[in-house]
Amino acid sequence: MATLCRPTVSVPEHVLTMEQTLDLARSVHTDHPQLDLALRLIENTGVAKRHVVRPIEETLRHPGFEQRNAVYEAEAKARVPEVVRQALVDADLRPKDIDLIVYVSCTGFMMPSLTAWMINTMGFRTDTRQLPIAQLGCAAGGAAVNRAHDFCTAYPEANALIVACEFCSLCYQPSDLEVGNLLSNGLFGDGVAAAAVRGRGGTGIELRRNGSYIIPRTEQWIAYEVKATGFHFRLDRRVPGTMEPLAPVLKQLAHAHGWDAAALDFYIIHAGGPRILDDLSKYLGVASEAFRFSRTTLTEYGNIASAVVLDALRRLFDENGTHDTARGLLAGFGPGITAEVALGNWSTGREAA
Amino acid sequence: MATLCRPTVSVPEHVLTMEQTLDLARSVHTDHPQLDLALRLIENTGVAKRHVVRPIEETLRHPGFEQRNAVYEAEAKARVPEVVRQALVDADLRPKDIDLIVYVSCTGFMMPSLTAWMINTMGFRTDTRQLPIAQLGCAAGGAAVNRAHDFCTAYPEANALIVACEFCSLCYQPSDLEVGNLLSNGLFGDGVAAAAVRGRGGTGIELRRNGSYIIPRTEQWIAYEVKATGFHFRLDRRVPGTMEPLAPVLKQLAHAHGWDAAALDFYIIHAGGPRILDDLSKYLGVASEAFRFSRTTLTEYGNIASAVVLDALRRLFDENGTHDTARGLLAGFGPGITAEVALGNWSTGREAA
Repeated sequence: MATLCRPTVSVPEHVLTMEQTLDLARSVHTDHPQLDLALRLIENTGVAKRHVVRPIEETLRHPGFEQRNAVYEAEAKARVPEVVRQALVDADLRPKDIDLIVYVSCTGFMMPSLTAWMINTMGFRTDTRQLPIAQLGCAAGGAAVNRAHDFCTAYPEANALIVACEFCSLCYQPSDLEVGNLLSNGLFGDGVAAAAVRGRGGTGIELRRNGSYIIPRTEQWIAYEVKATGFHFRLDRRVPGTMEPLAPVLKQLAHAHGWDAAALDFYIIHAGGPRILDDLSKYLGVASEAFRFSRTTLTEYGNIASAVVLDALRRLFDENGTHDTARGLLAGFGPGITAEVALGNWSTGREAA
Repeated sequence: MATLCRPTVSVPEHVLTMEQTLDLARSVHTDHPQLDLALRLIENTGVAKRHVVRPIEETLRHPGFEQRNAVYEAEAKARVPEVVRQALVDADLRPKDIDLIVYVSCTGFMMPSLTAWMINTMGFRTDTRQLPIAQLGCAAGGAAVNRAHDFCTAYPEANALIVACEFCSLCYQPSDLEVGNLLSNGLFGDGVAAAAVRGRGGTGIELRRNGSYIIPRTEQWIAYEVKATGFHFRLDRRVPGTMEPLAPVLKQLAHAHGWDAAALDFYIIHAGGPRILDDLSKYLGVASEAFRFSRTTLTEYGNIASAVVLDALRRLFDENGTHDTARGLLAGFGPGITAEVALGNWSTGREAA
């Protein structure tokens, strides 16, 4: 039985508070006809601060896609190894024990992906499978967990490593002036997360079942426009309302497993924004408090894309986890609109050992 | 037991012959100090013709990364559905039978990937898993087969669909003048391929075992530089020599399965270039004729990246396949330098039925 072990998360040293974000919006977009709306939307995110890889003044300049991508690569190489090493230690694994690396990141593009560099520099075996995913956006956190789960189901003795590396600040586009862009500029943050999925043993979420769902005809709602200046984020105003159609999907998946999605012991939810969390608790019929891990991630780090679910799970570990056999749900949401959902039981590995 | 069924392949209507390629190189690079070397390298590829999505005169112009990527999206939407439909018919599957779509493509970038559009427009279920891979280059053909195999191992009743969509002509960079670029300009072609992997039944390769391998410290040998003008292909002159270190890896994988890599019944090999095929037959100790499918792909279509292995396999089907239980090897090679290798038996599904 595959177990998703304790994630390690790191956020960069440069901090951007809500107040700074609002001040920046006011000074940069003085004449924007919808400035007041944008400020209100940013305030409503509840994001108290974000962390970004480069100093604010540098983040606000756009040095070109080539330079941005070079920064992405340098910062990934500087920040990923430590997080990966700690995640392996916490799962009681060595690099040589890893059979698959799932590397998810939508905020920079490299070919080969960072997996090749990691194998060459961090002691992973030369026969480690590489699964880099760049096109699932914020849903990739859930997808990484689910594909690692599938892999360990196919090979019960195998172990997988998940890495989510998201530097959303490197996708800041000064020329994008839609209200959705101004909101995004106040919502997203940077972070790196890693977690192991052990085929046998380990403490964490024993993964039981996973599922994916796409909301029909919403493929334009969250999207990149690809331009000479890089990836331009497009966010449709209907996105915050997507929990109404997705909640029944989560209920159905839980029901197929004999579980009630409204009565689980823990919830690890992608914190796309405050309404995502509010609506999902409403439509699932669970107390707002059940999403406290995700809410704290959003407040302290902003939306760190595919890394959110790993950070929210890390916060459950920081509460000393929960009781053995406790039932939980993990869900990532992103472009498609796609939901990647996992069901699992908390396990300290004692029963499996 | 997962079976890789008959691939469908389509190449575009615009044809570029070797003679045209040489003429173009002579006229565009008249003053290039290594023109003679480049012409010799292009002649040595043995690529008689390639097919490209846009007319030659349009292909040679660079309209900018944004426009290039818009062409990628339009051409993918125009060309993928027919290939997918035929691959499903040949596997006796309907879109609703597919549980996972593995979409591999390194020559354009979309988020969400084409999988979202396919699900919305082609009748796939809303709970189809999406696995888009953009960063494994030419190795992605093998990786797609292997990840589909893993998925069907985890869920034996499941079916996967593999799509490889490669428009290499849209990565032509007129400003790149290294000899490796001039060679690449004469080597790569465009093509779209699809194949189903059935969890149960089907005629084709029953997938038995797969493996991945990275040659240490070669991550710069095949790489993209990401610039405002798009993806710039970098090809190290040492790449054609990589079959010497990779042949033992293929032998070892076969040996671990109790097979002799030198004495298999069929070989489906990524035709990166002529020396890849020559060297691999030499170092594996198999007759050149054993690689005839890959060689014909290279001659008729050029290197169509991740689609090569599916086209080579299609040619085995066109020979009416082989005898039940025949043993074979499929291998993709690409950036990393990564090899993605599969072992399987030919099956007409009669024994499994």
